[in-house]
Formats: sequence, structure tokens, C-alpha cells
Amino acid sequence: MAPSTDISNGINGSQSSAPSRSNPYQPVGDFLSNVSRFKIIESTLREGEQFANAWLDTGYARMLDDFGVDYIELTSPAASEQSKRDIEAICQLGLKAKILTHVRCHMGDAKLAVETGVDGLDLVIGTSDLLREHSHGKDMSQIITTAIDVINYVKSQGLEVRFSSEDSFRSDFVDLLSLYKAVDAIGVDRVGIADTVGCATPRQVYDLIRTLRGVVGCDIETHFHNDTGCATANAFVALEAGATHVDTSVLGIGERNGITPLGGLMARMIVSDHDYVTNKYRLHKLKEIEDFVAAAVQVNVPFNNPVTGVCAFTHKAGIHAKAILANPSTYEIINPADFGMSRYLHIQSRLTGWNAIKARVEQLGLNMSDDKIKLLTGKIKAMADVRVLTMDDTDSVIRSYVEAGLD
Amino acid sequence: MAPSTDISNGINGSQSSAPSRSNPYQPVGDFLSNVSRFKIIESTLREGEQFANAWLDTGYARMLDDFGVDYIELTSPAASEQSKRDIEAICQLGLKAKILTHVRCHMGDAKLAVETGVDGLDLVIGTSDLLREHSHGKDMSQIITTAIDVINYVKSQGLEVRFSSEDSFRSDFVDLLSLYKAVDAIGVDRVGIADTVGCATPRQVYDLIRTLRGVVGCDIETHFHNDTGCATANAFVALEAGATHVDTSVLGIGERNGITPLGGLMARMIVSDHDYVTNKYRLHKLKEIEDFVAAAVQVNVPFNNPVTGVCAFTHKAGIHAKAILANPSTYEIINPADFGMSRYLHIQSRLTGWNAIKARVEQLGLNMSDDKIKLLTGKIKAMADVRVLTMDDTDSVIRSYVEAGLD
Repeated sequence: MAPSTDISNGINGSQSSAPSRSNPYQPVGDFLSNVSRFKIIESTLREGEQFANAWLDTGYARMLDDFGVDYIELTSPAASEQSKRDIEAICQLGLKAKILTHVRCHMGDAKLAVETGVDGLDLVIGTSDLLREHSHGKDMSQIITTAIDVINYVKSQGLEVRFSSEDSFRSDFVDLLSLYKAVDAIGVDRVGIADTVGCATPRQVYDLIRTLRGVVGCDIETHFHNDTGCATANAFVALEAGATHVDTSVLGIGERNGITPLGGLMARMIVSDHDYVTNKYRLHKLKEIEDFVAAAVQVNVPFNNPVTGVCAFTHKAGIHAKAILANPSTYEIINPADFGMSRYLHIQSRLTGWNAIKARVEQLGLNMSDDKIKLLTGKIKAMADVRVLTMDDTDSVIRSYVEAGLD
Repeated sequence: MAPSTDISNGINGSQSSAPSRSNPYQPVGDFLSNVSRFKIIESTLREGEQFANAWLDTGYARMLDDFGVDYIELTSPAASEQSKRDIEAICQLGLKAKILTHVRCHMGDAKLAVETGVDGLDLVIGTSDLLREHSHGKDMSQIITTAIDVINYVKSQGLEVRFSSEDSFRSDFVDLLSLYKAVDAIGVDRVGIADTVGCATPRQVYDLIRTLRGVVGCDIETHFHNDTGCATANAFVALEAGATHVDTSVLGIGERNGITPLGGLMARMIVSDHDYVTNKYRLHKLKEIEDFVAAAVQVNVPFNNPVTGVCAFTHKAGIHAKAILANPSTYEIINPADFGMSRYLHIQSRLTGWNAIKARVEQLGLNMSDDKIKLLTGKIKAMADVRVLTMDDTDSVIRSYVEAGLD
């Protein structure tokens, strides 16, 4: 509608490397934290398939690889014949990202998975009382015996192997630690903590991961559902507590309302370590990937999506607009240019201020004294009280004000 | 598309009152925590107006009041003549919710606000170096002098008064504590912590609020922007640390990609204290309010919106479906019935399992042996490999399988 005010700045980047000394709650160096060296396991092609309408072409894996994700996780080859063929096809693409498939901790499924040519297996089993009763019916000693057999088999085939519980936050924590200690001892590459129902709170996550970090030496992967709106925050605090890998999907698509979104995680991480994120991931590709997935699964990109939502960098209120014009960092923690996006200043409302109108007058190449601009601003605010103004309306009011010789 | 499997259960409620003893990271009673006695300051009519397209009828305040929010916050009467008239009209409605208006910490604005008939004023001023330089240009001693004058004036008029910084997480923390200690001493009702740019992380929030809780005796209000996807999580940990009030808006609408959404907060809080939330708020109204706002500001309710998104209670994968059929709590932390919503089991995909198909066969009133259902499931999975199946397709496959005498 209106041109963005194109005021680039490097302030975000310099801020992240030099936090203010006067705020004791700025991030500090923490030997547990992997915020500056996290890896992404992109699961749109697995978790995303559990989204009701998901059906993605395998060529989509190339887009994720271009973006720079570390791993791409695929549906189990045991799901169907086509699932198996899809995995084999993606393994032939020669991507930089490692290819994983997500399989039940079951020898038959694991053997089928190894045959596909993947780089690694993400093994999963439910450990909560509820899942043990209503899903697979195994007790803890059966789980541990099976886990060791399957992990040893996958390792014997030279593949990477992760072992994860399901519903970790409703599992017996001592059982969980015993199980993970046992699989760590036989050389599992990663253990996984999954908030399968989306119930975990940030402080629960931090405490659980921090304790686990002291029990196992292997990597720690996390998987957070978003039922209570905490999936991005939980992924972040897990990294602070020593987790190494984060599961994401594009737009967060997955079972129910999904998991940690790739774009949301990028927004969180770029604020915490601008250089790591911008050097490792091709952030300008984010919007294209999200648009592709949205079209494929027939949803709209949410209006309030981090970074790419229509209003992510839109500023409206008068006092905000004044400060944004002077220095975008006053009201922006993310520089839209890092994602190839631009900001938009909404000046045609009753909340507008004369600084915003003045900037627009200058953009239009017109000359007007500050006093006249203040009068004009009052006129625009009064009009906006009566009806919704478009940017064109506002420009025409500005022009007519000048042409009528009022200036 | 398909009927939901209508299996009501009260398990969520009983879980929240009796957390598992075996998980040390379940919530415990904490004398600081206000998770079980928080209050909502609903700011759709203020923060929401900063959303680019927002224009809400004042009658909307009645809907918020019906829902049960504690406060309704409105735009400053200094914004425009109509803003002032809107406030006066809403104050005349005789709502149960208290009416606040959000004004700059400025004597002229405060006097204008007092004249409107509101119950209280939410005073705000920017305290970060950036805002002090680029917005209002005041130094800390000027801020504190003005704050005391304006607060004393509002109190002398018998009105409730909050004093808040803007951009609290980028402000000098010692300055902030000094300022809040001073306004607490003269009897301010609440102080506010605002993450104006959406940069705060959950652990920063917990630590800052916990420290502030030890410095002031008054209530603590929090306001979190969602630029990095942490607005709901941050509001929650703030309550754990001793904050008392949370700012929300419907669908989170507000400046840029908005603030803590009312629905998302309800999802988070019902999991933490089912009885408090269900007794206090009329959750069945949530969808209606969200639909109303979405229509008014011309956006779609995001597909992945907590609780009311189209897929919030949709289950797809085979092993999930089996457990959901046995006990919905296996994969649901929120009971959809608490919000007047229902769950939906998606059975027509290659991820489907025979337990899900069996449940559908029974819903259709058909009889089939388990062995036959397993064969039928294989057939449906193979078809789903070839093309997207609708629920009607699947039902017709099931029926034709029976009619062809294959059972």
C-alpha cells in the first residue's frame, strides 16, 4: 500500500554481541547454553504429515536444504509403500542436510528404515503411564531391552541413532533418566525429549533438560508441541539448559496445532545470536518456503506469523512512528532486512502523529512548515475518526492541502 | 467433514489438581506464584487499535465483559475526539469489568482521562536509553518527578492508577527499580513491565519479575509482545514469579505481530489451573469473540490458533489415533469440551491405523472382524498413497468393501 521507510541499520547485530551492562537480565555466557551452536531437525516432512491436510512433494526437501537446516526428518518407511519410496528418492538427492526417518523403536521398522539409505534413525517410544497403558502396552524393562537391541543394530549398520520418549513431561522422571543413561552408555548419538501434548512450561523444560544434561554425554534433541503457545519459548530455554537440537516444521504444521515453527525459532534465535543465525541459515528463503508449504497444505500464512506475517513489521501509533522514524531499533528487535522483508509505517489513523505525517510529506517531495504539518495532522486524525482511510486517501488529503494554497 | 469422536473426560481437571509425584518438574505450590489468581487486562480496544487494520465498535466491550475479563483497556482520550467519546460511552455501559485508559505519563493527558469517567489510568513512559533519546527526550529525574505528580493527581481523584515503563527489558534495571520503588511508596496500585519490542526470554522475565516482586508491594502488570514467539510463555512465567495482571488482546492483535493472545493465555492457564480458569471465564464464548474480531479487522483466524484453530483438536497418525480412541488424554492436554469445541479424528491417510478404521466402521453401524478391518486398512493406506482421500471417499470404500461381500 505504502512504501516502506527504508532505514537499514546494523544495530540489532551489534546489540546481540554487546548486551547492555546495566540490565542484569541480559543473556550472559553460560557453559550449558547451546543458543549459539544449536542445530535444526526440520520435520515438516514427518511431523507436518500429521497435520490434517498435509501432502508435500518430496522435492520440497531441496528447499529445506537450501535454507540450511542440519537434518531433514521423514515419515517412517513402515507407514506405506509410498513413504518408503519417498525416503529412498530423497536420499538420492545428494543434499547437504542429513536425512533421518522417524520410526517406532521396533526391530522390524528399524531394519526397513536402514534399507532406505538414510543417514540416521530417530527412534521413538511412549514412556508415560497413559501411553504405556493405551498405546503399546510395554513396561519399562521391556522398553529398555528393546531400545538397547534396536540401537545396537542401527549402530552396527553405521548409522546415526537417536532414542526418544514420547510425552516426556508426563513420564516418570526417574524411569526416564534410567532409560537415557542406559542408552547413552551404549553410544546412542542423541536422546530426545518430547512434549507430545504441549503441556510443558519454560521452567519445567529448563529444569528437566538441565538435569538430563548432567546424566547423559550424548546430544539432546527437543520436540515441543504448541497447544499452550509455548513451543518456541520452550525450545529456546531447552537450548539454554544444554539441549543441542531443535525439531521444527515450517509454519509449525503438525499434529493438532503443531510444533515449534521454523520461522518463529529463527526470530527467537536471531535476537539471541545474530551472527550465528545469519551466517548459517539463508533467511531470505524463509518467506518462499512458508508460502510454498501454506499453498501445499491449503492454509493461509497467519496474519501474525513471526517475521513473515502481514503485520510483523507494521507500525501504527503516533509516538511509535516518531521513534521508528528516528531509529528503527526503538520498536524493532528484528531487522526486517535480515529476512529480505521491509517495514511499513501506517500513518492514516486517529493514532497518527505529526512526525509520521511529516515523513510522508517529505517522501511525497512536498514542502510544508512544521506548524502547517501539525494542522494537517489534526485534519487527518479527524477524518480517520469518521471513516477508514487508505494510504491513497491520506496522500490525496496531503496534496489537496498543499494545492489549495493552505501552505 | 467427519463426526468428532465424542469422548468427554474430566482427566485434565483432575490432573491439574493432583500432579504426578514421580515427575519432579510438575508445578508445585510456590508462594510467589499467581498462576491460580491472575487477572486479565484486556487490551484489544487499545493495543488492538495499534494493529494496522483495527477498527472495533465500542459494543465489543460487552463481549469482553461477558467473557469475564477483569479490566478493559481503552485508547487514550488524547488520541482524538472520537477516542474520548468512545471511552465515555463504554463507561456508561455499566459493565462488571473495570474500564481503564492507557495514557502517556503527562498531566494534561491524565486530566483529560479522568474526565471521561474511567475506573483507572494506565500511565506509560519510555525508560530505555533508545526511547529516552528518540521518543520523549526526558532523563530519569524528570521521569520520576512527572510520575509522582501525575500519580498523586490521579489518586486525588479517587481513581486506580498504574505506572509502567515501556521497553522495560532494554531499560537500565537499577533505574527501573528506583523508579518503581518511588511510585510504590506513594501508593501506586500497579507497576507495569512491558516487553515493548518482544525481545525478552522466559528466564529473563522470571528473574526480573521475581526481583521486582521483592522491591514493590503493589500489583505487577505485564505486557509482552510476540515478535520472537514468546508472549504467552513470558506472561506465564511472569505470573509464576509474582506478577498479578496480564495484558491480552483477542487473537493477540496489536503493534507489529501483537501481544499475548487471550485464547492462547486461556490454553496455557487451563492446563495449570483448570478450576480457576473454568469457574472465572466463560470459555465457550472464546470462539465467538475471536470470530468477531477477525471479521472486524479483516484477518483470518490462524489455522494453528490455540484452541480455536481448525486443527487444534485434529488427530491423524495411526498410533496416535489408537490411543486417542482409548483415552483422549493420551494426546490432549486440553479438553475441547471446556471451550465448547470437539475433536476430530483424521483417518483417511497413509498414516492411518486399523484401530482408527475400526472405530469408523463401528460409527457407521457396520460389522467387520478385526482381520477384515486390517485388510481394509491396508487398502485405504494404499489408496491414500495414490491420491488425497476425503472422509466421504473413505466411508464409501468401507461400505463397498462390506457390500461386495468381502466380509
